[in-house]
Amino acid sequence: MDGIRAASLWAGIKPVNKPDLALIVTDRPAVAAGLFTRNRFQAPPLHVTRRHLRKGRLQAIIINSGNANACTGAQGLRHAEIMARETARLLGVAVTHVAVASTGVIGVPLPIDRIRRALPRLAAALSPTGGRQAARGIMTTDTRPKAVALESRIGGRLIRIGGIAKGGGMVHPNMATMLAFLATDAPLSAPLLRRALAEAADGSFHAITIDDMSTNDLVLCLATGGAGGPALRPGGAAYRQFRLLLTEACHRLALQMVGDAEGGTKIVQITVQGAATPAQARAMAMAVARSPLVKTAMYGEDPNWGRIMAALGASGEAVRERDVSIAFGPVTMVRGGQSAGLAVERRAARVLHDREISVRITVGRGRGRATVWTSDLTDAYVRINAHYRT
Amino acid sequence: MDGIRAASLWAGIKPVNKPDLALIVTDRPAVAAGLFTRNRFQAPPLHVTRRHLRKGRLQAIIINSGNANACTGAQGLRHAEIMARETARLLGVAVTHVAVASTGVIGVPLPIDRIRRALPRLAAALSPTGGRQAARGIMTTDTRPKAVALESRIGGRLIRIGGIAKGGGMVHPNMATMLAFLATDAPLSAPLLRRALAEAADGSFHAITIDDMSTNDLVLCLATGGAGGPALRPGGAAYRQFRLLLTEACHRLALQMVGDAEGGTKIVQITVQGAATPAQARAMAMAVARSPLVKTAMYGEDPNWGRIMAALGASGEAVRERDVSIAFGPVTMVRGGQSAGLAVERRAARVLHDREISVRITVGRGRGRATVWTSDLTDAYVRINAHYRT
Repeated sequence: MDGIRAASLWAGIKPVNKPDLALIVTDRPAVAAGLFTRNRFQAPPLHVTRRHLRKGRLQAIIINSGNANACTGAQGLRHAEIMARETARLLGVAVTHVAVASTGVIGVPLPIDRIRRALPRLAAALSPTGGRQAARGIMTTDTRPKAVALESRIGGRLIRIGGIAKGGGMVHPNMATMLAFLATDAPLSAPLLRRALAEAADGSFHAITIDDMSTNDLVLCLATGGAGGPALRPGGAAYRQFRLLLTEACHRLALQMVGDAEGGTKIVQITVQGAATPAQARAMAMAVARSPLVKTAMYGEDPNWGRIMAALGASGEAVRERDVSIAFGPVTMVRGGQSAGLAVERRAARVLHDREISVRITVGRGRGRATVWTSDLTDAYVRINAHYRT
Repeated sequence: MDGIRAASLWAGIKPVNKPDLALIVTDRPAVAAGLFTRNRFQAPPLHVTRRHLRKGRLQAIIINSGNANACTGAQGLRHAEIMARETARLLGVAVTHVAVASTGVIGVPLPIDRIRRALPRLAAALSPTGGRQAARGIMTTDTRPKAVALESRIGGRLIRIGGIAKGGGMVHPNMATMLAFLATDAPLSAPLLRRALAEAADGSFHAITIDDMSTNDLVLCLATGGAGGPALRPGGAAYRQFRLLLTEACHRLALQMVGDAEGGTKIVQITVQGAATPAQARAMAMAVARSPLVKTAMYGEDPNWGRIMAALGASGEAVRERDVSIAFGPVTMVRGGQSAGLAVERRAARVLHDREISVRITVGRGRGRATVWTSDLTDAYVRINAHYRT
């Protein structure tokens, strides 16, 4: 996208030679909006970024992986401030136009001198085609970089959205649930961008669950206005189209995260329909998506619908057994809360051989409906998380 | 215990020759109290048992393993009623004095004819020393039977409590979270027994978590009154001593369950202290105990306190980072929300080599305190649950 450059390199935060410091810069201060983790313990970089975001403008995002700079107290806050200040100085931009993010191990002091030493090289490496490289620089246990690029003709001009993300563990919603950085050349105000981002996140980043909620989750979206034309207005058709495009971008990044869930082998889409309200549908879908018993059954390709029933019933939401149907892909294996028979179960089992699995749960005749995505729970997940840090 | 007999045998519900039908009988109708799962979908046997328990008297408990008789609709209810009726007929007791429980796979019709055929042999096998055998008969993925026997001199007479339990998967609280059957010869009224059982469960069965909440969880306690002497009275010293004894019995059964958690290698005790209220302390302790990242770190013997911080912060409870200390056994490795240093972390890591691990988390200066127990999350858990049913 015109007007945006990015880069990453190895600053020595990760023990091995893999990029661990990334930078995204716009030519001019861009309209900006952010979503932050709702974890009570927010990492110092998030405090700095939130403060800098108050006026709704950003020109640079500096991100390190390999160390979360979380639970690091006053020193951690100083380190995050240094990251912003040094980046600002090198680029010649206002320090309040610099956002900071960190991801990696919690509770270890950031090797701030290594970051400081690496910054000039990083700034020198900035390139209009550096997005993919930046996506690599923010990876932790991710096995592959996550990126998206979309464009659409909106209100007579071409509008672009690009984004990168990381996340495979500690992904759980009710907040921006990992790191994601998006940029668009759409012209719109900061309040409108905030609204569009919140709505886009609702059906994407907030609708996926892998395990826990992190201290460092952050979604940022920059809007350079480079596409030109009149600013998008709330309620207008162009704004609605833009919101859909942004939602699609967030959705693709979110699904890339679930697809790269730690140790995961499947992407499971869970839709609950027929609930009284969307909130109720979502609570039930999340209860199923979070259940370790459901997640292991998916891994074992076992159409164990009893575990889905148990998770639904445990959600605390009002639902009657006899109103429940469950379909795996096209195969409805539970009707009226009971098995549709062994032959049907065998057909449902075949659906589970796929990498992408759709589970559709009907819980009544209401209009409430919600879809969430989860990964399966595998021995590889356990191995990765039992031995990730030590 | 005098006045109580038990037995179990293989009725052919489990595919292999392992006991799957158990019976517990008192010589006379006993005072009885129960706790039921709060899962919205309660299995048919629980409906029957709840109905029969209304008058606070039971004389027999018939339990099958290998099939949960859950999500089986009207047929399931008929099957549970047949189990109660046939048991009552064979023993010559009132049908409303018979409780029914089932555990095992969900959604498969109960092989009621096999149960019916096995009942006469089961009744013939009843023995005063059959408790251990009954404990075997209620096992599913349990690797060993769970039983407890306690006695104490209370109010000038010896009072006994015995109990058996099963549970290793689908164990999560806010309800009676597995099957547990207790009996005592203490003399007391049904309302008082209910109260004692509810209080005893609070610090035991409701304080453990392995994964999910089941559709079939049930705790029953029978009191024969055989110990003689005046009935225990609320507020009296004898009642308080009895309640402690019952709590201890429940506690031991609950810990046996955590110790036999599916695939588990450790028992992790998590205490949160210094919270504003006990409820807040418990919510925080449970958030830590449920975190898959904390549970895998325990498995990996990694003193990854950052994951504990993240889980605490994600609990939604009010807590400030700088107020948090975390100790593994005697080693306080986090003070003021920050690491006490690498040397201390190494000492803490050694604590994690033990099978029983104590984690003490201080979150402030309040008087709220709670302790819960959890297992670690292992590759064996995944293997068991990915392939249990198919």
